[in-house]
Amino acid sequence: MIKEREIENKIVKTNDIIITSNEVETKMEKVQEMSMIYRSAIKEITTKLEVLDGEFKVKRKRNPIEYIKSRVKSLKSIIGKLERLDLEVSCESARSNLNDIAGVRVVCSFLSDIYEIAEMLKSQDDITVIAEKDYIKHPKPNGYRSLHLVLEIPVFFSEHVEYVPVEVQIRTIAMDFWASLEHKLYYKTFEDVPISITSDLKECADVIASTDRKMQEIQRKVEKLN
Amino acid sequence: MIKEREIENKIVKTNDIIITSNEVETKMEKVQEMSMIYRSAIKEITTKLEVLDGEFKVKRKRNPIEYIKSRVKSLKSIIGKLERLDLEVSCESARSNLNDIAGVRVVCSFLSDIYEIAEMLKSQDDITVIAEKDYIKHPKPNGYRSLHLVLEIPVFFSEHVEYVPVEVQIRTIAMDFWASLEHKLYYKTFEDVPISITSDLKECADVIASTDRKMQEIQRKVEKLN
Amino acid sequence: MIKEREIENKIVKTNDIIITSNEVETKMEKVQEMSMIYRSAIKEITTKLEVLDGEFKVKRKRNPIEYIKSRVKSLKSIIGKLERLDLEVSCESARSNLNDIAGVRVVCSFLSDIYEIAEMLKSQDDITVIAEKDYIKHPKPNGYRSLHLVLEIPVFFSEHVEYVPVEVQIRTIAMDFWASLEHKLYYKTFEDVPISITSDLKECADVIASTDRKMQEIQRKVEKLN
Amino acid sequence: MIKEREIENKIVKTNDIIITSNEVETKMEKVQEMSMIYRSAIKEITTKLEVLDGEFKVKRKRNPIEYIKSRVKSLKSIIGKLERLDLEVSCESARSNLNDIAGVRVVCSFLSDIYEIAEMLKSQDDITVIAEKDYIKHPKPNGYRSLHLVLEIPVFFSEHVEYVPVEVQIRTIAMDFWASLEHKLYYKTFEDVPISITSDLKECADVIASTDRKMQEIQRKVEKLN
Repeated sequence: MIKEREIENKIVKTNDIIITSNEVETKMEKVQEMSMIYRSAIKEITTKLEVLDGEFKVKRKRNPIEYIKSRVKSLKSIIGKLERLDLEVSCESARSNLNDIAGVRVVCSFLSDIYEIAEMLKSQDDITVIAEKDYIKHPKPNGYRSLHLVLEIPVFFSEHVEYVPVEVQIRTIAMDFWASLEHKLYYKTFEDVPISITSDLKECADVIASTDRKMQEIQRKVEKLN
Repeated sequence: MIKEREIENKIVKTNDIIITSNEVETKMEKVQEMSMIYRSAIKEITTKLEVLDGEFKVKRKRNPIEYIKSRVKSLKSIIGKLERLDLEVSCESARSNLNDIAGVRVVCSFLSDIYEIAEMLKSQDDITVIAEKDYIKHPKPNGYRSLHLVLEIPVFFSEHVEYVPVEVQIRTIAMDFWASLEHKLYYKTFEDVPISITSDLKECADVIASTDRKMQEIQRKVEKLN
Repeated sequence: MIKEREIENKIVKTNDIIITSNEVETKMEKVQEMSMIYRSAIKEITTKLEVLDGEFKVKRKRNPIEYIKSRVKSLKSIIGKLERLDLEVSCESARSNLNDIAGVRVVCSFLSDIYEIAEMLKSQDDITVIAEKDYIKHPKPNGYRSLHLVLEIPVFFSEHVEYVPVEVQIRTIAMDFWASLEHKLYYKTFEDVPISITSDLKECADVIASTDRKMQEIQRKVEKLN
Repeated sequence: MIKEREIENKIVKTNDIIITSNEVETKMEKVQEMSMIYRSAIKEITTKLEVLDGEFKVKRKRNPIEYIKSRVKSLKSIIGKLERLDLEVSCESARSNLNDIAGVRVVCSFLSDIYEIAEMLKSQDDITVIAEKDYIKHPKPNGYRSLHLVLEIPVFFSEHVEYVPVEVQIRTIAMDFWASLEHKLYYKTFEDVPISITSDLKECADVIASTDRKMQEIQRKVEKLN
């Protein structure tokens, strides 16, 4: 009977570095601690979003937040990204070079909701905005649309405070629909994807974006009726 | 500040019928019991879907289930529907006339996933299929698309078994996107909606449906690559 | 079947005051908003405790936190308490006079864990300690034991920050065992409880307290072995 | 950066068997599938208990269920137990020899609740009772008390039904208090524990058991008052 993660270990072992069991244990503890820190930061940001969500439910006619998801980047993806960027592969290197180890996704109803939620987070006292990228005004070449914020938040541990960056992606349901399927399609594809597929996907992204604008227009017309 | 219990326990005037507090309490208990029975049936169906979801995560390259939601129809909606159908307004009447008091929604990635999930549920030993409506092949006039099943499931209580119907709606993310926004748009609109808006929404539904077919095609092409 | 909304929207007779449905609706909204504010504060404190819990799991040999529960005081209890204290019965009065509308309970393994957790919360930058009562050193006459803190915490809403008090009760499992059963026993008892029962319960509380001290001693002895 | 579970791998590697990466992958998949099957069975049993819990909340003066916990036995414990029993270490061996891979714990208020819950589960149509051990009437030598049932339940997967055993442990809060602390005390103790500690713990278990009986008596007296 074999340990679940043996396979990922093989990746490590191919580095041709022999490490002693003490070293393994120390490194393992470091990885677990890193993961725990980012999970804690995700909890804090998610709580802030749930507080807003709770307020909207009680005080607004319409709640702009559809749902909230989150994830800590897997060790495999962290290692992959560090290698692609030609950076040292270590916890210290990950923590100082990567801003998307903790990720939170907010899915909104309409286009305008995205910017409203973003402003609410950015204006909170204990949050520092580290970076902002607007892939809605400037979509990625493959058709990807979303607003990305990197926010730094204080997390209180038993003996010290830590300031941790969290990437917050804010999208409409339609953008999330496209991104989820795009991710599913490419997830286990190791071969080159023919250009015909890439351009079909890009076309779908554009149709979806125009549907988003159409739905926003309808929403504004309906709001005027009330 | 109004005393919650006060409202229930004292004399309440509704529909010009004065009822005593004992009667109110008995009726409230019946409503609570009815709601509990449907909540239990939802739990059983949801567990069946979570079991499938867990299996897909481990055994399939791609999980067809995106997410699962559920709700018990609100008392207000139950009463509204009974009145619209010109039926007696009582718990007994609701239980024998309405099949959608317990509702579960399964959101899938691609069109073909919908029918696959439906087949899996329908083939389970302890489930009886009461009704099936395919609003994908035959969309509603407003553009609504989904597959609806009414499934009856046994629920084991402390002293007896109850066979409870649950409406299961199965859709793609794109269908859910349209239906969520459509619901939001009309939620608090009491005035007549101009025909221009209705036809705009219908048009969006059709564009989304064709995007769904497009994404399914892309998915099939990608699958062939692997 | 009684229409839930009906009850709220129509004329309700309470305390011999006839109030119009508009007044009821305004008051219901105020109650809902009050409840939402305290639920949010509970989320913030609970998240802080979950962050500590997560840290203990990774960095300590033994996690002092067994479980965390929370509740917003029911409207019925709020009204009851305001009446007992001979205070005005209104949301404003509740918010300025009661410190236990939001309640969080932390259940720990051993006696010494209680004070350690309390210190961790009290030392956090964004928390203000409003009150502290040690019912362990000074048990209530009925035998009740727990450490009570009232902590004020900032909650960020869409347009303003609110400083909200939360009562945090910290206990061992044994204290929680006694308190849970005591609460269950008296919950629906309206008659006077004979003194023989009260003194039996007090006796159980004392036996449990001495078992707690005994378990702490054993824990210290075991710790020295490692 | 090192994989989290390297340490458990070392246990595997000390078996002096060199396995190829294909073999690892196959075995890894088997372990994941086994774990998924038991998680599914836990979900089914937990749902049955939640249905009862929901019924008690609505229909009873007092809910006998305090809380429900569950776990799938860790790979490390499974291997440990198979080795201790001198059995083959494989998924097949685990599945046919161990009945406690899936474990559910029900914590009740009073002694009599334990047997009532047990009867409700045992009488359900789709459940088969495989084994029953009453460690309340016959406590283990160290003082451990609980009622253990092994129940077999059908789980519907996408293409077949599987009959899976689940160990259900039913206890009072007091029994759970003792067992939790006992587990914590010994968890990381590799040295021999002096007999003085063992007998202290046994003594605590007996005091707790007599407190349980005392609380049950009080409960009966209070019930008569109502």
